[in-house]
Amino acid sequence: MSITMAAMLDHVRKKAPLIHSITNYVTINGVANIILACGGSPIMSDNEAEVEEITARCSGLDLNIGTLSQRIIHSMILAGRKANALCHPVLLDPVGAGASSLRTETAEYLMREVHFEAIRGSISEIKALASARGCTGGMEAVDAVTDNSLNTAVQFVKAFSAETGSIIAITGAVDLVGSAEECYMIRNGRPEMGRITGTGCQLSGMMTTFLAANPEDRLEAAAAAACAMGLAGEIGWRRMQPGDGNAAYCSRIIDAVCNMTSEQLEEGANYEVR
Amino acid sequence: MSITMAAMLDHVRKKAPLIHSITNYVTINGVANIILACGGSPIMSDNEAEVEEITARCSGLDLNIGTLSQRIIHSMILAGRKANALCHPVLLDPVGAGASSLRTETAEYLMREVHFEAIRGSISEIKALASARGCTGGMEAVDAVTDNSLNTAVQFVKAFSAETGSIIAITGAVDLVGSAEECYMIRNGRPEMGRITGTGCQLSGMMTTFLAANPEDRLEAAAAAACAMGLAGEIGWRRMQPGDGNAAYCSRIIDAVCNMTSEQLEEGANYEVR
Amino acid sequence: MSITMAAMLDHVRKKAPLIHSITNYVTINGVANIILACGGSPIMSDNEAEVEEITARCSGLDLNIGTLSQRIIHSMILAGRKANALCHPVLLDPVGAGASSLRTETAEYLMREVHFEAIRGSISEIKALASARGCTGGMEAVDAVTDNSLNTAVQFVKAFSAETGSIIAITGAVDLVGSAEECYMIRNGRPEMGRITGTGCQLSGMMTTFLAANPEDRLEAAAAAACAMGLAGEIGWRRMQPGDGNAAYCSRIIDAVCNMTSEQLEEGANYEVR
Repeated sequence: MSITMAAMLDHVRKKAPLIHSITNYVTINGVANIILACGGSPIMSDNEAEVEEITARCSGLDLNIGTLSQRIIHSMILAGRKANALCHPVLLDPVGAGASSLRTETAEYLMREVHFEAIRGSISEIKALASARGCTGGMEAVDAVTDNSLNTAVQFVKAFSAETGSIIAITGAVDLVGSAEECYMIRNGRPEMGRITGTGCQLSGMMTTFLAANPEDRLEAAAAAACAMGLAGEIGWRRMQPGDGNAAYCSRIIDAVCNMTSEQLEEGANYEVR
Repeated sequence: MSITMAAMLDHVRKKAPLIHSITNYVTINGVANIILACGGSPIMSDNEAEVEEITARCSGLDLNIGTLSQRIIHSMILAGRKANALCHPVLLDPVGAGASSLRTETAEYLMREVHFEAIRGSISEIKALASARGCTGGMEAVDAVTDNSLNTAVQFVKAFSAETGSIIAITGAVDLVGSAEECYMIRNGRPEMGRITGTGCQLSGMMTTFLAANPEDRLEAAAAAACAMGLAGEIGWRRMQPGDGNAAYCSRIIDAVCNMTSEQLEEGANYEVR
Repeated sequence: MSITMAAMLDHVRKKAPLIHSITNYVTINGVANIILACGGSPIMSDNEAEVEEITARCSGLDLNIGTLSQRIIHSMILAGRKANALCHPVLLDPVGAGASSLRTETAEYLMREVHFEAIRGSISEIKALASARGCTGGMEAVDAVTDNSLNTAVQFVKAFSAETGSIIAITGAVDLVGSAEECYMIRNGRPEMGRITGTGCQLSGMMTTFLAANPEDRLEAAAAAACAMGLAGEIGWRRMQPGDGNAAYCSRIIDAVCNMTSEQLEEGANYEVR
């Protein structure tokens, strides 16, 4: 198993997949830069007149609902169906699901119309999606993945993955990345990453890139992306200088992805599989 | 009075208010990062289908007209009225008022439909708003707040605050933050801050955060935010390395806010009240 | 000839031209910051209700098709015609031309309706535009400007410039900036610039600024902007620290423009004219 993480990153660097991102305009620049940093090539388009054509040129699609309009929702449907038809992996980042009906309902609508290879969000976002499907058994009182709630959360990830047919990735103090059968529990990262806007969106862009480059091993690819992001948070933190804050940290994390070797990821990845 | 600045920042850090920002897409990432840096939590949404719901979950609203569309203007009205109904502070940043009829008229329209706790802009932007209300007495020839124009400008701030019922914040070489009764004259900051895009928008986001966390002392809160921004400009400048320019400076200012202690703000704030 | 590069930058710094940019929301912040860094002043607006008024206040217009909507295309036409009527230089950055019909056709439509002082893109983007006009003679097999393809590419630039009446700028390993009569071959820059999102968009913003400040010498101005960007890439690269990656590099390039003196540009510019 351990050899896998290095291979996942190697494939990204060798294949340099072109990734189509329909993502929010708050953090879009960082998403483009981290896709480049890990070895992919980003293209951003949310225009319904071209999204199918753009997606057809790419090998993965990242749909992020952080800043929605009716026009963009329609573009997401068109791009998602086209990517499905071409067997490209499609990832959903349900930013703010649970915070407004529009977001929760749009995420549900997308999940009905598009097959997602992976869904990545915070625990509250993923619970909001699961709740709409009556699938939150045991998680009602769980607001964070900690050692105490780990067993419950792992069961939830597996059940929700079985329900949706998607890899489920919940990122937080412990990241969970799981299918119906197995779940990676990842302990990379730093709590200070939460004070930067866009680290979640960036991980979604990078995870889509890893999925596109590793079609045979998608669960491992998704887990490797989560390990890489967390490890970059650790490496970036060690490079912080006196006086540096969240703006410097944001750059240092992307830089750490840019410079990360396969060996570094292999050694630094801190996970177990259950 | 002097103890106040520290307390304003302490309250932001303790309450971590959730701030709704409808802001331009040029500088939105920096606005989100500086709200996080000072201790708040940002959420960005300009979609009319959800802005009322989003605002209701927050405790402050920042409306910035830097990139407008009809859709966004409508969203600003909906969010502004909802925030008013809930007694959340609402701030107006009239970016480019005076540079186009659309901007000037949109700012006026917003001021008729929404009560603003504070209005923050450059002197030309604030004069454009005042001019539309026939309220620029004495300021016709004043293009910058300097020692020569200080008395006139302070009177103008008080009069325009009385006219609008809003705290008026004019930022420049000297920042003025005033109500109808009293006006802070703040001498923090560096002229080089003008070579970075978005420092004004960032201050508006941070001022909204300070207002939301200090409902009992809103004039002091707005003044503390202006002092914090200027002081961050001074601290960030001292950390500049040979070869650093406006991109590095932008990061260093946000970092300085991130690391700023209440004591540092208390000692570094350079102001008098008239 | 050699004195010219310094003069081009001097004029930007002395005139501080106001530049109107209708550009994509992926890289817009960097475009604003590099216009400020080189000495101009940016204003961004894509709203059809104000673009003519905004353009009339400026002295140059940058049209970048990286994120299009019907509304924005209409705004580009309105702004472009107004800028033409006022004899302001207008630059086209055909981001992604060739990657979708929408982009290729929008670029063609803009070229029919607006006169462009300059068109700046990658070789694939410029070839896509030329192809639509049956003007790619000899370039069918050329995917990059290298020593082997230099003669062919220079002839192509001159021919396409004669066809369009625009300065043609192709940026890559060697940058070509040419009119119908002469072509600058520029060997500044670093390959690592390709791993940052937005360096092309930034150059387009800076080139528009140089064109606006140098109405008498527009070919030299466009070439000077390309040299400045490449030289900033070299200076920024020398300032890279261990662990720095593409995010740090992006800041360091803008910083190098910010600190670039006319003498530095004069000495560092590496070009010949054919």
